[in-house]
Amino acid sequence: MLEDSPHTKIDTVLGKLSRALEAGDIDAAVNLFQADCYWRDLVAFTWNLRTMEGQDQIRDMLSSQLAAIKPSRFRQDEKEPAGGSDGVTEGWFEFETELARGYGHIRLKNGLIWTLLTTMSELKGFEEPKGLRRPLGAEHGHNRDRKTWKEKREAEAVELGYTTQPYVLIIGGGQGGIALGARLRQLGVPTIIVERNERPGDSWRKRYKSLCLHDPVWYDHLPYIPFPENWPIFAPKDKVGDWLEMYTKVMELNYWSSTTCKSASYDEDTKEWTVVVDRDGEEVVLRPKQLVLATGMSGKPNIPTFKGQDVFKGEQQHSSQHPGPDAYKGKKVVVIGSNNSAHDICAALWEGGADVTMLQRSSTHIVRSDTLMDIGLGDLYSERAVASGMTTRKADLIFASLPYRIMHEFQIPLYDKMRERDADFYADLEKAGFLLDWGADGSGLFMKYLRRGSGYYIDVGACDLVIDGSIKLKSGSGVSHLTEDAVVLEDGTELPADLVIYATGYGSMNGWAADLISRDVADKVGKCWGLGSDTPKDPGPWEGEQRNMWKPTQQEALWFHGGNLHQSRHYSQYLSLQLKARMEALTTPVYGLQERHHLS
Amino acid sequence: MLEDSPHTKIDTVLGKLSRALEAGDIDAAVNLFQADCYWRDLVAFTWNLRTMEGQDQIRDMLSSQLAAIKPSRFRQDEKEPAGGSDGVTEGWFEFETELARGYGHIRLKNGLIWTLLTTMSELKGFEEPKGLRRPLGAEHGHNRDRKTWKEKREAEAVELGYTTQPYVLIIGGGQGGIALGARLRQLGVPTIIVERNERPGDSWRKRYKSLCLHDPVWYDHLPYIPFPENWPIFAPKDKVGDWLEMYTKVMELNYWSSTTCKSASYDEDTKEWTVVVDRDGEEVVLRPKQLVLATGMSGKPNIPTFKGQDVFKGEQQHSSQHPGPDAYKGKKVVVIGSNNSAHDICAALWEGGADVTMLQRSSTHIVRSDTLMDIGLGDLYSERAVASGMTTRKADLIFASLPYRIMHEFQIPLYDKMRERDADFYADLEKAGFLLDWGADGSGLFMKYLRRGSGYYIDVGACDLVIDGSIKLKSGSGVSHLTEDAVVLEDGTELPADLVIYATGYGSMNGWAADLISRDVADKVGKCWGLGSDTPKDPGPWEGEQRNMWKPTQQEALWFHGGNLHQSRHYSQYLSLQLKARMEALTTPVYGLQERHHLS
Repeated sequence: MLEDSPHTKIDTVLGKLSRALEAGDIDAAVNLFQADCYWRDLVAFTWNLRTMEGQDQIRDMLSSQLAAIKPSRFRQDEKEPAGGSDGVTEGWFEFETELARGYGHIRLKNGLIWTLLTTMSELKGFEEPKGLRRPLGAEHGHNRDRKTWKEKREAEAVELGYTTQPYVLIIGGGQGGIALGARLRQLGVPTIIVERNERPGDSWRKRYKSLCLHDPVWYDHLPYIPFPENWPIFAPKDKVGDWLEMYTKVMELNYWSSTTCKSASYDEDTKEWTVVVDRDGEEVVLRPKQLVLATGMSGKPNIPTFKGQDVFKGEQQHSSQHPGPDAYKGKKVVVIGSNNSAHDICAALWEGGADVTMLQRSSTHIVRSDTLMDIGLGDLYSERAVASGMTTRKADLIFASLPYRIMHEFQIPLYDKMRERDADFYADLEKAGFLLDWGADGSGLFMKYLRRGSGYYIDVGACDLVIDGSIKLKSGSGVSHLTEDAVVLEDGTELPADLVIYATGYGSMNGWAADLISRDVADKVGKCWGLGSDTPKDPGPWEGEQRNMWKPTQQEALWFHGGNLHQSRHYSQYLSLQLKARMEALTTPVYGLQERHHLS
Repeated sequence: MLEDSPHTKIDTVLGKLSRALEAGDIDAAVNLFQADCYWRDLVAFTWNLRTMEGQDQIRDMLSSQLAAIKPSRFRQDEKEPAGGSDGVTEGWFEFETELARGYGHIRLKNGLIWTLLTTMSELKGFEEPKGLRRPLGAEHGHNRDRKTWKEKREAEAVELGYTTQPYVLIIGGGQGGIALGARLRQLGVPTIIVERNERPGDSWRKRYKSLCLHDPVWYDHLPYIPFPENWPIFAPKDKVGDWLEMYTKVMELNYWSSTTCKSASYDEDTKEWTVVVDRDGEEVVLRPKQLVLATGMSGKPNIPTFKGQDVFKGEQQHSSQHPGPDAYKGKKVVVIGSNNSAHDICAALWEGGADVTMLQRSSTHIVRSDTLMDIGLGDLYSERAVASGMTTRKADLIFASLPYRIMHEFQIPLYDKMRERDADFYADLEKAGFLLDWGADGSGLFMKYLRRGSGYYIDVGACDLVIDGSIKLKSGSGVSHLTEDAVVLEDGTELPADLVIYATGYGSMNGWAADLISRDVADKVGKCWGLGSDTPKDPGPWEGEQRNMWKPTQQEALWFHGGNLHQSRHYSQYLSLQLKARMEALTTPVYGLQERHHLS
């Protein structure tokens, strides 16, 4: 019996894998995988984020990387019991490479590997100072040249960016820049974060006033300091802002607020960026070795062009500029768009006493927040998961262990269940004229997020207002033009308006590169985000990972970082290790560098 | 065999205890204790902090409290395995009273109770909003009167203390006031904290610049947000200050900085305090129902009177006023005192290039930091403890489970071990003329802290400077008088001085009550701190708990809170529950109200 235990099965395969890889026997390693197989690697083997699909791709990766990476000592994590169901056996393991320690997850079918996840945990000799390695703080003994912690911090603030240069410059100080900055600080990588707003957290504070996180607290923890157990499930934006501000302070980040980046260029000879910033009125030239754009995964605001925008006499705002309803009581507002921001803004405007019309130009995916939390996230990110012993790290790794190629297959049944549970709700929405969809293949919200980062609303109440007509809905027609005081649709309908809000989304992140660096560099890098799923707004070919995110790009020393709080937490780890390795001049052979297939 | 397991033994006794208490059978309950026995109760049975010693005291307490408290359902915590060694069996249990849920620890000898700890965990119907009860944050649905989190916080800040009154006013915004304020906030008790400094954390920032915590990080966590795993073992004072500031913000405390309390008086008829404060130049009259003095357990600075203090032409400072060495390079400094502050200040002055003499007037207890951490705290508060599964809560409760009457018996062997380990070090100190002691009964540092809050130095390097003469030591003689430029000792020695620092400690906390309220109230309450151990600075009679701390005093609605970070964390829980119960007008019969035996 014991021979058939999940633990024994995993042990057997890991032992064989370890021996094959240590011996350089690529065929033996590949033969441990079944024909339908996936190996997702986060930095450990590929110095890249890559998913190898099928034995041929795995063989190709190993042929390229094995000699340099020198993996060894694959062994089951004895603290995380193996398990299994439906013919799948799964477990956790540790391993090493020449330069790093790693952690992984494995799924077997019939004794062969179906999915393998390998991630880099830490670089040998450059471990973070935590736990047993935490700093002493007080310097015991006596030393006439002793500087206090405060004196050292103050000296660093004066010198870094002036008499000394940061190794990494992060443009953008939202949750992405902050989480990455915290990890780099722990790794001893001199880093400056520049942020145009006055205070850390302002990127949240300055959004529309009713905004709360749409993701729940268990999904949102930052590295190092998790939210406390009394933190709200869906935190209000200003509370998130305050948390980010304190986090920036206590994690000792070099955070330049009120600073805008004016230009950046890379010298391929000296391998150095020249970045000109305006720091609260003072022009400062920075010369980092690595540049990270963390200016928002949603990229630059996307404002459509309509005839008559110049003659319209009221206000026009992109959703990112909308302050909330307070000034618009009794006013007529047309909101163009029907995704998250559009719904939030419409509901708040209705609550604020405005006369508000939502213009839905194409179908939208709607899920109710409660249902999504329960069915979509509950096993990994919920109080129930915490009670069952799930940790944030483990949840992140399980999440990461599902190859993107087959993730939709796991998602579709969940959304079928949601559709069934809330059938009456969806019928009411359709009766109100709302155009619904469930993603190109019925795989729902999370796949839409990964593929295009848009196209959905997590309902926290606005749908009822659409259903009962409090928010007026106009769907199925595009905009023809604007007049002095109205939006005119293609079907001839005229919507009187004092304010037009364009809740029309954002462009690709490489648009930031075009603005800050050059069109050439933006085009060399190409489109960011998306999987290449060949679904709307995510053209093929298949990538298998998010385009250009958290990994090397066609532009040396240029990186893109962003996404929700979960991604900011999880992927900042792998990005920080890639940057640290380069600072220490370790050998970092990149396998399968991102190709460019689309300009934006 | 199973019948003899620790689990079974504990189950048997708890079952009998539960039945006896539920049936009101006091004799049956008392007979479960052995003759040499202790029952420490934190609020659950006594609405007080009390240790009953021996069967008679237990019988007396139960006779007084049982009918009102209605305890029931004592049951072993199945998640915490029972254990035992040396004839002692110990375990953990849950229980209930009519109004509350409780948690406890029990030790058996020969099947009878030796020590029992009962603590109140939460009030039924007033549970904290955490875990499964955490707030939703976002308010789903729609509501035209909706206020955002920010609007509500801003309204509260404007109204509380002006158009609405706090239920609790805390004077003093150091770690004590902040930790208590955080717990009261979670319990929904309207509270204002007033603090004379400009920013939360300034009580640390403004101390001498070399100051770092002497207690290690595992001992220092605040409630709700523990320090992260990269936090230094001994945090520098300014870093602690920053943490307290962010904590105050994200825990949403109503913290009035730059505010001094000018007077306070209690109206026994209306059961209300009238407290006049100066808030940044504006006089505000507050009318709280409960007043907490959290102005520092060390009380007011204690400055001795010497002839000639008025003719001395240099500077004179109490240690609490000393800014650090920067202005004293090349100056002659006499530090009167030989405890923690004296050593820290002398070492920093020597590092800063001053000519410094320490005047030791009486013997001091010295332990080396490394040794103390390893032998004294390591089992409960260390990375080793964390790795073995010890949590902060469990460590606090184990710590609390040892009755003060016998605690020194557990401490003495630890200090014997320390003395042995560092024998050479102590020999060197004595050779340098330093007067050593180990507490009245050899029980060392922690007992000194509990009894008198003074009399020791945790060595982080200054002792080497005393040993090698870098810090000049003069011991065994008191001060005769000061001249224009020197301190003259009773033995005739003249110590030239540009600066005299009085590292001479602090008075009892009720001195604050004398200043803020009246001498009458201060005298009615009497001395704070100390156990009544009949050792130096802690006169008898035996109290069994810390005098007047975290529990009702002879002055209705007046409370004292303070101590190190550990105590601020642990005892704030019991104080907050006592305050909440009063706000909700629950029946809170106090058993064994603190008597006054000493004025200060």
